[in-house]
Amino acid sequence: MHLQCPIPKTDFDVITLGHGSGGQLTSRLLDTFVINQLSNPELEKRLDGAILQLDGNLAFSTDSYVVSPIFFPGGNIGDLAINGTVNDLAMCGALPKYLSLSFIIEEGLPVSEFWEVIQSIKQAASKANISIVTGDTKVVEKGKGDKLFINTSGIGRLHPKAQIDVNRVSAGDVIIVSNKIAHHGMAIMSVREGLIFESNILTDSKPLAHVCMSCLDKFGDSIKLFRDPTRGGVATTLTEIAESCGKGIFIQEKNISLDPSVEGACEMLGLDPLYVANEGVFIVIVDALKANEFLEFLSQKEETSFAFKLGEVTDSYEGKVILESKMKGKRVLTKLIGDQLPRIC
Amino acid sequence: MHLQCPIPKTDFDVITLGHGSGGQLTSRLLDTFVINQLSNPELEKRLDGAILQLDGNLAFSTDSYVVSPIFFPGGNIGDLAINGTVNDLAMCGALPKYLSLSFIIEEGLPVSEFWEVIQSIKQAASKANISIVTGDTKVVEKGKGDKLFINTSGIGRLHPKAQIDVNRVSAGDVIIVSNKIAHHGMAIMSVREGLIFESNILTDSKPLAHVCMSCLDKFGDSIKLFRDPTRGGVATTLTEIAESCGKGIFIQEKNISLDPSVEGACEMLGLDPLYVANEGVFIVIVDALKANEFLEFLSQKEETSFAFKLGEVTDSYEGKVILESKMKGKRVLTKLIGDQLPRIC
Repeated sequence: MHLQCPIPKTDFDVITLGHGSGGQLTSRLLDTFVINQLSNPELEKRLDGAILQLDGNLAFSTDSYVVSPIFFPGGNIGDLAINGTVNDLAMCGALPKYLSLSFIIEEGLPVSEFWEVIQSIKQAASKANISIVTGDTKVVEKGKGDKLFINTSGIGRLHPKAQIDVNRVSAGDVIIVSNKIAHHGMAIMSVREGLIFESNILTDSKPLAHVCMSCLDKFGDSIKLFRDPTRGGVATTLTEIAESCGKGIFIQEKNISLDPSVEGACEMLGLDPLYVANEGVFIVIVDALKANEFLEFLSQKEETSFAFKLGEVTDSYEGKVILESKMKGKRVLTKLIGDQLPRIC
Repeated sequence: MHLQCPIPKTDFDVITLGHGSGGQLTSRLLDTFVINQLSNPELEKRLDGAILQLDGNLAFSTDSYVVSPIFFPGGNIGDLAINGTVNDLAMCGALPKYLSLSFIIEEGLPVSEFWEVIQSIKQAASKANISIVTGDTKVVEKGKGDKLFINTSGIGRLHPKAQIDVNRVSAGDVIIVSNKIAHHGMAIMSVREGLIFESNILTDSKPLAHVCMSCLDKFGDSIKLFRDPTRGGVATTLTEIAESCGKGIFIQEKNISLDPSVEGACEMLGLDPLYVANEGVFIVIVDALKANEFLEFLSQKEETSFAFKLGEVTDSYEGKVILESKMKGKRVLTKLIGDQLPRIC
């Protein structure tokens, strides 16, 4: 375990039901482990909510995180919960500003694990430049939860040039994926299945807001849509987009950028990387005239250095996603069916 | 069961892990049971977040609800989750406008129960005049959750006259409680313990924003603080206030307004009503000059018809809450210790 701060001394090693009572134990848990770590003036007021001064168009998003296990290669449920909501706001074309943080803890969670999660939250919040301004903590009995669930909700300020709207997607637009895919899902699978892959696959969880905002600075309304292909992967997200806009989407398997270790792991488990979750990748649909310049712009940034053109929007195949395989065969992609990878985020 | 709308026909009776996959089953669950029920333009866009136009000072609040059982006399986890966050915003002095809604469902939850919760959410949202603009749904394996957990986060617009600030609380201010106490906690206990009390005790869960806003309209900055005594009850909330403002709080047991059925149930279970959770009561600290008029104003409204003066802020007893018993004995109240009533909200 890699801890930035030494864990505070307490007279309890595990979290108990009493820590969720709203009384003395709750205060002590929050004082010692949460509020002083994530400190800011709003949080320290300990009110039922935070008062924020904001003007204009705001984005508002929520996600509950139930990933299992809560620690996995490259991250844990804490940074995942921060980055995930930061990215949902970024996908709306908004710069994330304020997050809420709500814990549902299973009785018996070791305090050391809770501390490690808090430290990751602290670092992720700092990296994404957001403040955690309000929160909540509940504890449920052993066997009524699974270590730790986290909800984060967030508010961001819409970028002035953002025109993110699925109805603006039109034939000819280019579909760009911001990085190599399927890392997060395969990182979780590796620990869950106890597999040892050729090389250690890490989650790609990271904040994408900064890069999305710089795309909007430069390309403005040439950007039609941002979406992050988390649960259900790239295939499910593209299918949702095709259904929403009523256009066809044509993609080519040969274009997909995949790390050899991820490709090998997917083959070993019989998983299609197009359906595997990502937590640090976005899909952007951009005006064809700007597509090459956009791709060049992304490839120069660290978070998106493996960006690739996956395909394009077309007037054919109305509302459907067509994949052309490496062998030039074509098939319709569907949304993920069933539960290929439950509790991936 | 009292259902407003007939339950939609589906080919599944229970919710399965696949409904949380983010794929086809998730779409079907949300389309059939959630989005068309809570319909509004933002929700129907099915984006990663909602875009809202808001200006000025906003309140932002979050709460996760893990109440057990999820159905209880007078309500269920659905309306509790709406009213709870609506009230947290009201306690900040804000008019609630937009809520997010996030489910963590345990595999195997009967669709009929989910439907009943959604119907309660719909009614509560309508009653509180808020829109649910964004959401999330996760499913965990059987034994890794407990039927249903709900997070709601909310955004409200600060009332222009609101000056809610614990630092404005000063000696002489009067502490008013808006209604009879301890109903919610005793309603939950009655079903949890399988007790039959003399009369059926119902939760007091209700939205308080409307009444709080009309108090602010009329009394403006004479209102120093609103707080809702949920988990930990009136005693814990007052102790937190005393600690925060550094003043003493003196309250008199003889003033407490308690329904005879609640009083009897508390006696039977050995519970102190001052520590039992409320979900439709607020504590307000008000300038002494306005206290009688304020009490009169509250007592004319349905939601607060049993409002009573509980005590006052004093320069004695720095940071402590002193209860004078009916026998004129005095003792210091503390925050709730341990887990008198776990998972009450």
